[in-house]
This record gives sequence, structure tokens and C-alpha cells, in this order.
Amino acid sequence: MLVVMQAGASPEQISRVLDSIRALELTPHPLPGATRTAIGITGNTGAVDSRLLEVLPGVKECIRVTKPYKLASREMHSADTAFDIASTKVNSKTFTMVAGPCSLENEAMIMKTAEFLMENGVKLMRAGAFKPRTSPYAFQGMGLEGLEIFKRVKKRTGIGIVTELMDTEHAAAVEDAVDVIQIGTRNMQNFSLLKRVGLTRKPVLLKRGMSATLEEWLMAAEYVMAGGNYQVILCERGVRTFSDHSRNTLDLSVIPPAKILSHLPIFVDPSHGTGKRAFVPPMSLAALAAGADGLLVEIHPDPDRAMSDGAQSLDFPNFQKMLGSLRQIAEPLGRQMG
Amino acid sequence: MLVVMQAGASPEQISRVLDSIRALELTPHPLPGATRTAIGITGNTGAVDSRLLEVLPGVKECIRVTKPYKLASREMHSADTAFDIASTKVNSKTFTMVAGPCSLENEAMIMKTAEFLMENGVKLMRAGAFKPRTSPYAFQGMGLEGLEIFKRVKKRTGIGIVTELMDTEHAAAVEDAVDVIQIGTRNMQNFSLLKRVGLTRKPVLLKRGMSATLEEWLMAAEYVMAGGNYQVILCERGVRTFSDHSRNTLDLSVIPPAKILSHLPIFVDPSHGTGKRAFVPPMSLAALAAGADGLLVEIHPDPDRAMSDGAQSLDFPNFQKMLGSLRQIAEPLGRQMG
Amino acid sequence: MLVVMQAGASPEQISRVLDSIRALELTPHPLPGATRTAIGITGNTGAVDSRLLEVLPGVKECIRVTKPYKLASREMHSADTAFDIASTKVNSKTFTMVAGPCSLENEAMIMKTAEFLMENGVKLMRAGAFKPRTSPYAFQGMGLEGLEIFKRVKKRTGIGIVTELMDTEHAAAVEDAVDVIQIGTRNMQNFSLLKRVGLTRKPVLLKRGMSATLEEWLMAAEYVMAGGNYQVILCERGVRTFSDHSRNTLDLSVIPPAKILSHLPIFVDPSHGTGKRAFVPPMSLAALAAGADGLLVEIHPDPDRAMSDGAQSLDFPNFQKMLGSLRQIAEPLGRQMG
Amino acid sequence: MLVVMQAGASPEQISRVLDSIRALELTPHPLPGATRTAIGITGNTGAVDSRLLEVLPGVKECIRVTKPYKLASREMHSADTAFDIASTKVNSKTFTMVAGPCSLENEAMIMKTAEFLMENGVKLMRAGAFKPRTSPYAFQGMGLEGLEIFKRVKKRTGIGIVTELMDTEHAAAVEDAVDVIQIGTRNMQNFSLLKRVGLTRKPVLLKRGMSATLEEWLMAAEYVMAGGNYQVILCERGVRTFSDHSRNTLDLSVIPPAKILSHLPIFVDPSHGTGKRAFVPPMSLAALAAGADGLLVEIHPDPDRAMSDGAQSLDFPNFQKMLGSLRQIAEPLGRQMG
Repeated sequence: MLVVMQAGASPEQISRVLDSIRALELTPHPLPGATRTAIGITGNTGAVDSRLLEVLPGVKECIRVTKPYKLASREMHSADTAFDIASTKVNSKTFTMVAGPCSLENEAMIMKTAEFLMENGVKLMRAGAFKPRTSPYAFQGMGLEGLEIFKRVKKRTGIGIVTELMDTEHAAAVEDAVDVIQIGTRNMQNFSLLKRVGLTRKPVLLKRGMSATLEEWLMAAEYVMAGGNYQVILCERGVRTFSDHSRNTLDLSVIPPAKILSHLPIFVDPSHGTGKRAFVPPMSLAALAAGADGLLVEIHPDPDRAMSDGAQSLDFPNFQKMLGSLRQIAEPLGRQMG
Repeated sequence: MLVVMQAGASPEQISRVLDSIRALELTPHPLPGATRTAIGITGNTGAVDSRLLEVLPGVKECIRVTKPYKLASREMHSADTAFDIASTKVNSKTFTMVAGPCSLENEAMIMKTAEFLMENGVKLMRAGAFKPRTSPYAFQGMGLEGLEIFKRVKKRTGIGIVTELMDTEHAAAVEDAVDVIQIGTRNMQNFSLLKRVGLTRKPVLLKRGMSATLEEWLMAAEYVMAGGNYQVILCERGVRTFSDHSRNTLDLSVIPPAKILSHLPIFVDPSHGTGKRAFVPPMSLAALAAGADGLLVEIHPDPDRAMSDGAQSLDFPNFQKMLGSLRQIAEPLGRQMG
Repeated sequence: MLVVMQAGASPEQISRVLDSIRALELTPHPLPGATRTAIGITGNTGAVDSRLLEVLPGVKECIRVTKPYKLASREMHSADTAFDIASTKVNSKTFTMVAGPCSLENEAMIMKTAEFLMENGVKLMRAGAFKPRTSPYAFQGMGLEGLEIFKRVKKRTGIGIVTELMDTEHAAAVEDAVDVIQIGTRNMQNFSLLKRVGLTRKPVLLKRGMSATLEEWLMAAEYVMAGGNYQVILCERGVRTFSDHSRNTLDLSVIPPAKILSHLPIFVDPSHGTGKRAFVPPMSLAALAAGADGLLVEIHPDPDRAMSDGAQSLDFPNFQKMLGSLRQIAEPLGRQMG
Repeated sequence: MLVVMQAGASPEQISRVLDSIRALELTPHPLPGATRTAIGITGNTGAVDSRLLEVLPGVKECIRVTKPYKLASREMHSADTAFDIASTKVNSKTFTMVAGPCSLENEAMIMKTAEFLMENGVKLMRAGAFKPRTSPYAFQGMGLEGLEIFKRVKKRTGIGIVTELMDTEHAAAVEDAVDVIQIGTRNMQNFSLLKRVGLTRKPVLLKRGMSATLEEWLMAAEYVMAGGNYQVILCERGVRTFSDHSRNTLDLSVIPPAKILSHLPIFVDPSHGTGKRAFVPPMSLAALAAGADGLLVEIHPDPDRAMSDGAQSLDFPNFQKMLGSLRQIAEPLGRQMG
């Protein structure tokens, strides 16, 4: 349920509505807007008589949200979600670039990559310190040592860091070290982990599960938001189908319906989505044209020697070339590269 | 196998190679190029000693084609296939628009649509006279009467017609009446039909089967080309997956690998691909950005009263708006609207 | 719509109802039952006032059928469909075996196989004279010559023949030569072909399309039945999914819902369904246990030298062993091997 | 790599081999067999010279395991894995039944269900105390309180308990309270959780992920086994496909290849696999016939009032009837109900 306050409602009036919601054993989520405040209500709202809230001073109306996801739905929050990360931003007028290696391999390579990105106007870097590997015998990432490296890279270059969190145990350390917490595709329905990152105050980049429907994906976002963390970025990274011409089937067609049903920003990961570097530039352009808000791209100073996913990583010159192509169509599409 | 002739090979030399190939009980397919002629060979080439051909005057070299598709493969024909249809063209510098109603409903509506399209620079119209319907009790199209209407529309407006052929019985009539013969998704592996259209001399628009791999699709094209009809256009129209946010899952990611493996042009049908008109403009822009050579879009003067597929048809004003958006990004992408 | 006649309705009364239905420009399908006759009505029944028929002498009631398939639905025909083929039968108490090579390769091998089958109590043989091959350059079957061989094999051994029909052109010849006309998976929605076999009077074995839903499959059966041929056997042969441990994903779970929604018999093809001979016996047992009415199995006197699909063909001793296993569980499951 | 000891190798010889493996910075996994001991080696075995181990006293031979999963592969452990749980067993001659409600709702219903099961010879009960729910607002299970109830039910009835563990936090409590730890489909690649249950000494029932390949599933089992817990049961529960006639597509065809590639037992969950109670008995019979080692079935004293998944739960009389049918075909299939 959504309580919409009148344009001139006072802080006291808002506060009283919050208290009344809590008294009903429900959870209020204040959602300040440009002209008025709204208050989302989650919990078992089925049995609530909305008139109890509508009669309170400063309340304009109560609206029932028909979708199973509430905080993630556009019914409850009609404007596109927008927020800042490090020195860049995420919103409907920006096409936010995130790039970097699959794995953090050593400090020298990550520093080199960060400097290259900042020189090229890319202000967010992705890199994995904890790696979800199919085999228990494969390299599992640098772990906590990697987080220390991230702090030094950030301090020196000013770049924002996006990294994956794989379990609740390392949540505090990751929240402390980076700018965006990534939830990987295999953990999209790891509900304990989603609840935990709902308690952090860093943006969460939520990758779509390999065979998740749009509704399940938005429900996963709802788990994070129900904890009070509203800065969620959806990230399409390819789904699993019969198709064998690419590693996964990058589902750009999810972007328009996601934009209609939800106010959350949506990024695209064409590197995992296709699995082959030659397919990354055309699918990146297509993502921008389809209405995505940003990209998550794998690049590597020397892809053929990458410890993981080299086949889908662009080298620096090809990434620069792709940035140039993106810039050319961003403007007619009403976006600024960010 | 591919025989590459020397740049200055004479017609007599080429002719002698053709004869030698036939003498080996194989089929030669002359493929004239900008600087030299090549000759594709199909049939059971496994046992052929290529030296028998390499010693002939004017022959530069013989190349074994490693893919199961031969004539459709880029190994055998490295340049992008290009040809003209009606007053427009299909090639790697053009983004060819095809639009029109799902079904031909009556002469007035089709004439109105054709005039609208020509006024807006769209020179090819799609419309179904024979309709593949899931139910035997549903409207099956106007049939042969529809073909007569097409001839009159064409005569009056000059527009080129694209229509579906469902069986060998009507092949001659359809070839006679229209400019492009469409093979529908349900018939992508109707091998008798593919062989039949291989004998026509009209371009064939070959829709991808609902769960066809790229290789199966190119093999279907090969069936058409093996008959001597080399003007094949691939058309992606969405594949079947678990995903339920759209009618099918439009697989734009097939475009880059298709372009690498084959020289054939590839169009995209975002109307069937998504099933909802609101998703058509963003996915059309994405198709162009991903490297498609053209679009097949459903439009209708009054979509809410369409006899079939109204939910996925654009009305005229929204189609015009979409054309404007496409034009804006076509130029930076190196394409001209056609 | 379904008109149910009273138990003692006379032929004249039935005849009058048929005429009345035709007078409404609809098509009547008489469906004689054990105790009373019912008459299915197809065509645009939406606008028909059922009272026009209910007042006729001998009519018990009119029932609206809610499914898009009518003749195939259990609503219209509550008893399981049963019929005889050659010297065996198809019904809910029999588990009907069909076995044989993928392709008819030559007369000797097919005669040998037929004799082996008859000796082992298997009275139906499958073999392809017209082969749907992915490649235009692959062996396309013996064609019409093969049909002649079938006639001789049938005459000598008494075995019934099941073979695939690929186009309308050969429909009459195939109907004449064999006992069951098979429609292959790639042609499940070749509507022209479905209409054509609806005009034959031989049972039709309708393979499920590679990504067909149950409803689409029953609609395909409806196309055949709408033409007046009610002897349709559904055949599950594996669907296309992301799974890579077998050639297709054999969907035995379609059997229970198919049995609820339709009265048509359903067979299973574990050879194409799995693609590997070692998986055929366990999946055959599972098909019987899941409620299937029969099997379509590939066997070959010398599988490793088969012209096609040898990897999924059982040799004779392994097929005999499997027959033994099937027999052991058929009885407790209430089935007799047929 | 696998070191096979001679039949009469002494404990000292085995011990020396284990030490030598550790000296190479690899992990030895002793695998005692009926006639001789084998020692699996995991870690980076690529660079190891097997001759270093082959020269040790008591060593028969060293075998390279070619699959990415080692401990789970039949190459390393040729006999079927067998072990006891509570008062029943898991092995290739037993068909092990596990039944119970989706959620533990209260002590009375679970006690009633346990008594019913023990009376009917079913010695393992499934019930969820921690529930993975798509919505954060849905009932999340009784949690730790539920584990106490399990202990009382177990004490009173002697039944063994199977329950799901959702996070590392509750691993010790769950290991302490129950007989089998279930890893749910959404956590099949929650690698942190897999590693944690690898450290427990209770059997782990590992559900297949919604779109997991067989190899990925065996790799997930390998994560558990690499920790030293070799009692892993695979559980097929339906995969996600385009098919809409059931909740998921129950993939019984995975059983034969799983049996060839791995020695681990495999159970089937027809309740989640189909989502509809009418489909559970035929698919249970089919699972047994296909070679499964056990079943995981949802039953409920009053399915229509179940707090979750009532539509797929059998009531007690229908479950008894199904048990009777299973018993009839178990014997001819060489299995004893357990």
C-alpha cells in the first residue's frame, strides 16, 4: 500500500503517519519526492482498512499496489530512481559505464586499469575479489587482501569500485571497501544474502538469475529494498536457453518491460551475456539503444593472459573504440555518457 | 569446396571449370565478385581430389569449406550479399524497412497503408494473404484473391510486397505476385517448401524457427541456395524460452555471430519478437545498433480493430515517430534508411 | 459445441441434427459412443444459439467446449480413443510397440528387421522413406521406391508400417502404401500438410514440435481431426531446452496433463528423445510407468553401420532384453504389450 | 587423480601414500572399497608426476580423472555410493521414500504426519523450517523453533528428518537437529553454503538448480565432497523450460546419464517437478522405472489448507495408494521400497 501525503504536509504530519503504520504492525518506507512525500507500506497489508490512514492530517490518498513487489514497482514510485556513485551518477539521462577485469589478479594490473579508465572518463571499475567458480579447485579470488588493494586504488585514482559479495560473512568488509555491492547471478535468490545487503547503505547491483523471470528478479530487488536499501541497480547478463551461438542469450528485450513495471535503473553486462569479445561492442550499442541505463563490461590489459574469462574481455584499444561508438549514438538517444 | 579463379580468368576458362565440376557429378555455383569469380561446389565433395581442378587454366586455388553450410557461409563468399528489391536495396550500408499489417484484410486498408508507407519513404510492405493460424477455425487469410489485390496495390503505389508462402501448391502464384517470398517460423524446416522456393527467382525472407540454432537456420538457407536462389534474407523474430515478459525472446545477440559466419543479410521482426507494441520502438533501435540490415514491423491503420496481432501493431503516428528515431542513429552507425 | 443425443435416439433423429448444423453453416462431427451418440460442432460456434438444436427430437443437451481445441478435447469425447492398426491395437489397456530403423536403407535390412519384430510379437515397424535432413546434401531417403519395398515387406510378413510424410505431393502414395502416416516434429505446424492428412483415412502419428506447448500440439491434432480423420496418435519425442546431457529433453511429464485434456493416445519416442542408445531402455520403462500408450523405438541390425541415427539405435539383442523388462512391469500397470 | 592400492596394502602403506600426497600440497581423499582402497587426489594435480606415487610400496596404479568433477565421478569411485540414514538406507537396491509437508506449520500436524509415515513404512520425513520464499513478505518458516519440534518428533516416532538449510549461520543448528541437510534449488551454486555443508557429517540432499546442466550439478556436489562429506544425494526437481503444462519440466532423462557419470544416488521430487498433485503418482512411477534411487514427495493431512504448495501435495489416502502402486513395480525392477 502507498500513502500519498499532500504537497504541503508537515514533518509532524508525516511522522504521525509513520507511527500509525507501525502501530498496525506494518513497516513504513518514506519515499520523498520532488513535490510531495509518499510512504510505502510493506508487511501483511491485506487486512488493513486504508481509511484508518486516510483520515490522518496531511494524507492525500491511499493506493493499493497490485504487484507482488511493492517498493520496486512503478506503482509505488513513479519517477525513475536516481542516485550518485563515487564521482558519477545513475539516472535516466546518463549512460553509466562500469568496466574492469573479471578477477582482481594483482595490484599492478588493477591500478593500471583504473588509471586507464579514469583517463577515458569511466569512473566506475568492476573487479572480483571473491569469485564464484564452478569448480572448487579453481582460483577463488584474492579475498580480503583484494579489498585492501581496492582501497588503495580508490585512494590513488578516485575511481569507484564495484565488486561481488558472495556471503553474509564478508558483507561488512565489502560494504566498507567498495562503492557498489554486486550480487551475482547464482545468488539472485540467495534470500539470506539479499536480506543482509538490504541492511547496508551502499548501492546494490543485482544480476539477473540464469533463468529468472522479470517478476522473480523484481522480487529479489524487493528483498533488498524491504531492508531499507533503495539503491538497487538491475543488471541483465544473459539467460540460459537452447541457443548455442553465444555463452548465454543476452535478453535485451527485458529492458522495456522492466522500465514499465519498475523505477529501478537497469544495466547490461554484454561480456557474460555473450561470452565472446567480438560480440561485446554491437551488443553494447544495442543495450544503449534499447533503453539501458548503463553497462558492465569486462576489459583486461592483456585478455589472452587473463586468469578468468579472457575470451570475453576487450583489450584497452578496442574498449576505447567502443566508447567512441557509444558516444556517437548516446546524444541522439538523449543520454550523456557517465 | 570453393574454386577461386584468377583475377583475369576468361569466360572460357570459367566455363571449362564448370564443366569439369559437372563431370565429377557435383554442382557448380558461379559466384561473381568485384575483382574475381569464385565457384562454389556442392554435393558429396568429400572424396574429390582438388588437384583435378587446381591444374585447370585460370584457377587460382581450391578451398575446402569447413562448415556444414557451404553457399551460406562466409568462407565461400566473403563479401556481404547485396541486391535490389523493388525500388530499394538490401546491403550492409542500408537499413531496409518493411512494414505493414499482419493480415491483408481488405483492399482499402492495404491501399491506405501502402500510400502511407511510400509517403514516408518505406518502399516495402509486408502483409499476409495466406495465414498460418494455430487454430483450424481461425481466419486463414484471403488467399489467391489477396494476391490479386497485391498486384493492384503494387501497380498503383509502386511499393514492393513481402508475403508468406505456406505450401508448394501456391509457390508459382506467390512468386508471380510479390517481390519477396516469406517463409514463416513454423516452416523453417519444411524442407520440401525450402527446396521449392530455391527454384524461384525472387528473394526469400527466411524467418528463424522458434527454437532453431544458428547452424540449423543457416542450413535452412542452404536448402534454398542449393536450388540456385542466392537472394536469402535471414529474419530473427524471437525464440522460445522460459521468459514470460514478452511473447517470445527477441534474440538480437544472434546478429553478430550470424554476420561472422554468413554473408547473408539479417533483418529483425520486433513485432512478433516482443508481442507488445510498446516494446517495438526500443527493440527496433536496438536491432539497428546491433548490426541488423533491416526491420520487419507490423503497423495497422487501426490496431485495436486488427483481425490479427493488433496488440503488437503500431499505429501510423507511432510508426512515424519511430522512423524519426531510427534516422537519428542510423547515420552515426554508418547506415542509410532504405 | 457438443450435441449429446439421447440413449435411444434414432438414425433419423441424428440425421436431422446433422442437417440442422449444416444449415447453420457449421460442420458436424458424429462421435458414436458405447451408449449414445454425440455430435461435435466446429466452425464459428460463438454466435450460435444452442436452443435451436436443443429443441430437436432425440437431443439430450448441448455443451459448450471451453478449450480452443474441440475434437481433440476430453470435454467433447470423454472416453479414450481406441482403434486397430494392422494386427494390433491402440487403446488404454495396450502398450503398443513400434520399432525399426531410422531410414529404410535397402530391402534386405528392412525384411530382416520386420521378421525379427514379428517373431518377437511387435506388429508395427517404423522406417523412413522420405527423410527430413538438416543438410540438403545428406541422404534424403529412398522415396517412392521405398514405398514399394514397404508393400512387399508388409505382404510377406504381415507387419504394419509407420512412415513419415513430408509434403502434400506424396500424401496419396504414402496413404496407399502404409498403415500409419507420421508427421515429423519439424512439420507439426505445417498446416497445409496437417489439412491434407486430415483427408486421408489412415491413422496419423503426430510428433510434438521441438518447442511446442501442449496446447499447440493439441491444436495441430485438431487440424487433422477437423478434416474428418479422428485417428490421431500424439508422440512425445523430446523438446529443446538448455540441457545438454541428451540430444533433446524427453518430456514424460507431458503425459499426465495430455491424458486429462485429451482422449487421444500418446506414444513416446525415447530414441530421438535421448539420442543415446544406453538411455533408451530406462526411458522406455519410464514412459510405460508414466502412462504412455505406446513406444516408437529405433532399432537396427547393425547400429554402428546405420546410415542415420546409429548412435541412438538399439541392436536386436538389447531390444529383446528391453521387451522383457517392459513385459514385467506392464501387467502390474494394467497394460498388455501389443 | 586416483591412486589405487594393491588388494593387500597395509594401513602403514596407505598412510605413507596419504603423507606423500600432502607433501605435494594436494588433498588426499581415502575411498575404502570392498577389495581394495583407493585414494582420490584433489587440488592442482595437473603438474604432478604420477610416478612419484606409483613407486611407493602397496600402490597398484595411478589414474588420471578426465572429468572436471573428481570425487563425484564414476571414474574415481566405480561402485554406487551407499549409506544408511536413520532406520533406512540409500543404495542401488532400495527405493528410498521421503515424504512430508512443504512447511513445518505446527507441532501437531508434523507429529500426525510422522506417525502416518512410520505406520506406512516410510522412515524419512521432509519438512521446511527455513523457507526460501520468492516474496520477502511471505511466511518464512518457523526457524529455530522448528528445529526443536523436529527433535521431539524424531524422539517420539523414530523418523529421520530432511530439512533445508538456507545459510551458513544456521548450519550447526540444522546439522545437530536433522538427519539429512537439504540444499535448495536456488542455492545449488551458493558456493559458500556448499563449502559449509562439506564440513558437516550429515548426508546432503542437493537439489538441481532450475537451469543447471548435469555437469554444473556434479560440480556443486564436488564442492560438498571436496570438504570431506561424501554422502551426497542428487535430487532432480524439474528444470525451467518454455513448457507451461506443469510448473517445471521434470527431467527424468537426466537419471541415466547421471548414473553413468557419477556413483552418487539420485532422488526425484515429482511434487515441485510438476506442481500439480494429479501428476505426482504417474511421475513417481516413472522415476522408479527410469532408475531413480528414491523420491521426495509432498504430502499434507489437509492439502487445501496447507500454508504453502497445497496444490502439489497429496493427501494421505492418495499417498497410500501411490505407495501400493510403487511396490508393485519395485520388485520386477529389482528394488525394495525403503
